[in-house]
Amino acid sequence: MSFASHPAFRNFQPTPASIPPRNVVLRQVTPKDKPVYLHNLNPLAFLLRAAQIYPNKLAIAHPDTEHPVFYSFSVWCQRVQNLAYALIHVDAHFGFLAARCVFTPINIRLKPTEVEYIIEHSGSKLVLCDREYLHLLAGVRVPVIICDDTGKPDDPYEQFLAKGREFSAERSWQGLEAEPNENAASTLCYTSGTTGRPKGVVSTLRGAYLAAIGNAFESQINRDSTYLWILPMFHAAGWTYPWATVFAFATQITLRTVDYSLIWNHFLHSGVTHYCGAPTVQIGIFNHPKAKRLERGITAIIAGSAPTAHLISELEKIGIKPCHTYGPFTRCYEYPEWKTLSLEDRSKLMARQGQTFATAEVARVVYQPDPDLPLDKVVLVDVPKDGKTIGEIVTKGNIVMKEYLNDPEATKKAFRGGYFNTGDLAVMHPDGSIAIMDRSKDIIISGGENASSLAIEQELASHPHILEVSVVARSHPKWGERPMAFVILHPQHAEKWAGRHAEFERDLKEHAKKRLPGFACPEWVEVVPELPKTSTGKILKTELRKRVNNMKAKL
Amino acid sequence: MSFASHPAFRNFQPTPASIPPRNVVLRQVTPKDKPVYLHNLNPLAFLLRAAQIYPNKLAIAHPDTEHPVFYSFSVWCQRVQNLAYALIHVDAHFGFLAARCVFTPINIRLKPTEVEYIIEHSGSKLVLCDREYLHLLAGVRVPVIICDDTGKPDDPYEQFLAKGREFSAERSWQGLEAEPNENAASTLCYTSGTTGRPKGVVSTLRGAYLAAIGNAFESQINRDSTYLWILPMFHAAGWTYPWATVFAFATQITLRTVDYSLIWNHFLHSGVTHYCGAPTVQIGIFNHPKAKRLERGITAIIAGSAPTAHLISELEKIGIKPCHTYGPFTRCYEYPEWKTLSLEDRSKLMARQGQTFATAEVARVVYQPDPDLPLDKVVLVDVPKDGKTIGEIVTKGNIVMKEYLNDPEATKKAFRGGYFNTGDLAVMHPDGSIAIMDRSKDIIISGGENASSLAIEQELASHPHILEVSVVARSHPKWGERPMAFVILHPQHAEKWAGRHAEFERDLKEHAKKRLPGFACPEWVEVVPELPKTSTGKILKTELRKRVNNMKAKL
Repeated sequence: MSFASHPAFRNFQPTPASIPPRNVVLRQVTPKDKPVYLHNLNPLAFLLRAAQIYPNKLAIAHPDTEHPVFYSFSVWCQRVQNLAYALIHVDAHFGFLAARCVFTPINIRLKPTEVEYIIEHSGSKLVLCDREYLHLLAGVRVPVIICDDTGKPDDPYEQFLAKGREFSAERSWQGLEAEPNENAASTLCYTSGTTGRPKGVVSTLRGAYLAAIGNAFESQINRDSTYLWILPMFHAAGWTYPWATVFAFATQITLRTVDYSLIWNHFLHSGVTHYCGAPTVQIGIFNHPKAKRLERGITAIIAGSAPTAHLISELEKIGIKPCHTYGPFTRCYEYPEWKTLSLEDRSKLMARQGQTFATAEVARVVYQPDPDLPLDKVVLVDVPKDGKTIGEIVTKGNIVMKEYLNDPEATKKAFRGGYFNTGDLAVMHPDGSIAIMDRSKDIIISGGENASSLAIEQELASHPHILEVSVVARSHPKWGERPMAFVILHPQHAEKWAGRHAEFERDLKEHAKKRLPGFACPEWVEVVPELPKTSTGKILKTELRKRVNNMKAKL
Repeated sequence: MSFASHPAFRNFQPTPASIPPRNVVLRQVTPKDKPVYLHNLNPLAFLLRAAQIYPNKLAIAHPDTEHPVFYSFSVWCQRVQNLAYALIHVDAHFGFLAARCVFTPINIRLKPTEVEYIIEHSGSKLVLCDREYLHLLAGVRVPVIICDDTGKPDDPYEQFLAKGREFSAERSWQGLEAEPNENAASTLCYTSGTTGRPKGVVSTLRGAYLAAIGNAFESQINRDSTYLWILPMFHAAGWTYPWATVFAFATQITLRTVDYSLIWNHFLHSGVTHYCGAPTVQIGIFNHPKAKRLERGITAIIAGSAPTAHLISELEKIGIKPCHTYGPFTRCYEYPEWKTLSLEDRSKLMARQGQTFATAEVARVVYQPDPDLPLDKVVLVDVPKDGKTIGEIVTKGNIVMKEYLNDPEATKKAFRGGYFNTGDLAVMHPDGSIAIMDRSKDIIISGGENASSLAIEQELASHPHILEVSVVARSHPKWGERPMAFVILHPQHAEKWAGRHAEFERDLKEHAKKRLPGFACPEWVEVVPELPKTSTGKILKTELRKRVNNMKAKL
């Protein structure tokens, strides 16, 4: 581990409150009525076990700040206990125990009114907030604990933890009763709200435990691994990697922002073996000036939205091994025979969402033969495995969310037919692998044909001068709708086309015609400096559609 | 995979009944009342998923027979469905569905009367038996399906499967309803019965699922792995590796017997990456004339009884990486700082049973301060972490057996204090790692001191001329008990000592005096050609004690 030679690492001292007492017993009180052969699945067990087995191993490195901090599993585990008691202390009236709080990570790119809505809707009792994001809490009326990210005893967050630590000697882990129901909520994550109000997604402890183990296994993370936090942890609870890494006894490195220069420093000098990121972040990685072929392979877990084949091949060229997952409902499993294919052909296969994940139950692509049936009578039928017929991806089992908080109607709608209906439109190939074609609202009906905006983007992205592209429907007097493409040019080629965007448009249309049926070729192309995105890197097609609607008005 | 060039592999055809129908849907009907976010943990899901995702991958190779067979995941899965329907067909009155039968593997080295007892006690309805072991079923009154291990359509077992296949087209996997309770029994394995009647150990589906995933993760088995079956599958359900390998999409190679020459062929030529084996089997492996340093490392999962440090170092010398587990309740986790230790010192640490396993809940070393309390009032207290104080290993959680079948008294006794009491005596070291000292009945009380027969064996085994050694208590007029050692000489050195066993005894006692306290040095040494063992490789100390008792009578 290269941090051993880092001066900040050698000089770092955790706060006194973070040092566990001697002879700490890393065991909670478990429910008395449980039979000997049953224990509740709960990811908290991963941390207690890591602190027991590898107490001195570096668990979290947070090096790129004014006050870097480095926590071993043992110290981290004590800090979690401190936090637990501090939370109880704050709100003793509710009598909930800290391991039984539900954690709601909040997207830092939301507006204050949205943050206010989430804190109110979730019924949050306390907010932990980095000082940098305090302005988001303007309208919030619950207590706020500020963190200055220093790890020093005078940091307000450290003072909060120190209060909790006061209970440690007397009550220890034995004072924190384990949650007696494994189907209780583990996290409450809000959707990014591309349409309407954000919805609160409740996940279970059982689901978190099994998804985390599935992720550790599928990405082959183990105790020799170093995981770099590029994905924001507020994005679907960090795709369960906060738990998967600890289950595997891996070391985690955290960043304050997605800074590609820092990311490359860690790739090259910190022994990074794994990271997660949405496609848009992956583009930023392989296009960065520091990017070069890595001697030691790094595994990139890609999810959040569908990667283009172009993206996958660019990653492979620099020694980043893509592990393309969807959910953790499916993963694109590779086959030995793919090794003989060209990088382009293989990348196309690897861009598929694939098949059921390690600890998931099932993912299907279905349609409703009778869309007019009431919600509780809905029947779902598999689309043929022809790689053509479009249906919706549905899934069920332990990895699926439990409900939308306080929204039984939305939950019922999402669970129609006994499955979680994802809203993603896809085909199923003859080998059983799923390939997403579009979000249901993003499909373009062009001359009566269903054109997948995603499939169009996949082909346009192979144009060598394009950095990123997004396609939406635009009204057309003759065809009903036609595709419109918004394009960011690659920095290396932008100058070439400066002032000649009309020429580029013709060039790209030529490129499209060779690869796509006529109804799927973009009718309009606009070169833009950037694309509107959610903070999790999803392109906000709703914003693009608004622009397109304004264009129509001008016609 | 080297089997690709094996002529038998190229020529092999599965029976027509083993070929799945076109467009097979690899999905069972699941319980209707399950919420969308829950599915029952059941290892059968591993096979359905493997057949879905890697249908054509070699799942099982059974090459070293007159009629070698090679099954892909797809074919194997169909055979399992056939077996399911065939079982229903046989016993339709009970209406149980095949996926919901409980499987009882039977030890082939038992006597016919013992087999008869197990079949009767388990309430078995049908026996599947290889023709070689038919003589074991002399007194058995339930129907027997014989297997000739040919994989050909005229094999009686294949005919049985073909009957089941008749239901495939009409009912498919949808006709086999999944077990609605994840805590239902998965397997019923009988103890080897070193004392008294064998007891039927019931494991749950949930436990099997989680233990299998834990094993796949801990041994780092993945889809590039090839697992060689050296461990008999009847030994505690093959330590869940029948499921762990399939969860990981690994290839399995099966053998009819533990033939070290064949094992080395596979080590050298079949791409083997993993195998399991009790210590006695490991000794046979590194002592075989074909043994040589392996270019590619192989992971040996060692359990069943405690390995000596000597054994671990011998394996490492030939490139076999030991993964020492106990249960799957604990595993000996290695630490980076061990790398600088001598092989001898490191091997001693690796001989410890270690700490709580990936998906286990907890393992403790405890004593009962008041041994006279009734079973339902028993209180268990941790021994100090001093590496000296002996207590009993207890464990609980999902990996623990559910009960002893039809033996509530034995179950209650085993579960006293709210834990499964293993009967293994151990110490806990300051780092929290467990080291077994002995079975409770194997401890030697020599001059009032507790001498661990295992610790004595560990030290005697380091004598370079010893192949295997076992130590038991023998009555002594002055000291109460004293250790007696039974020794198998290493083949390379046996000749040297021929006719001079008294000299060897003196030599070994000298060796012991340098390493052990006086009360733990063997008072008597006997060189023997072999040691009595259970078929799972455990030394039958009960037999040695009988011999020792006869000796006492002669004094």
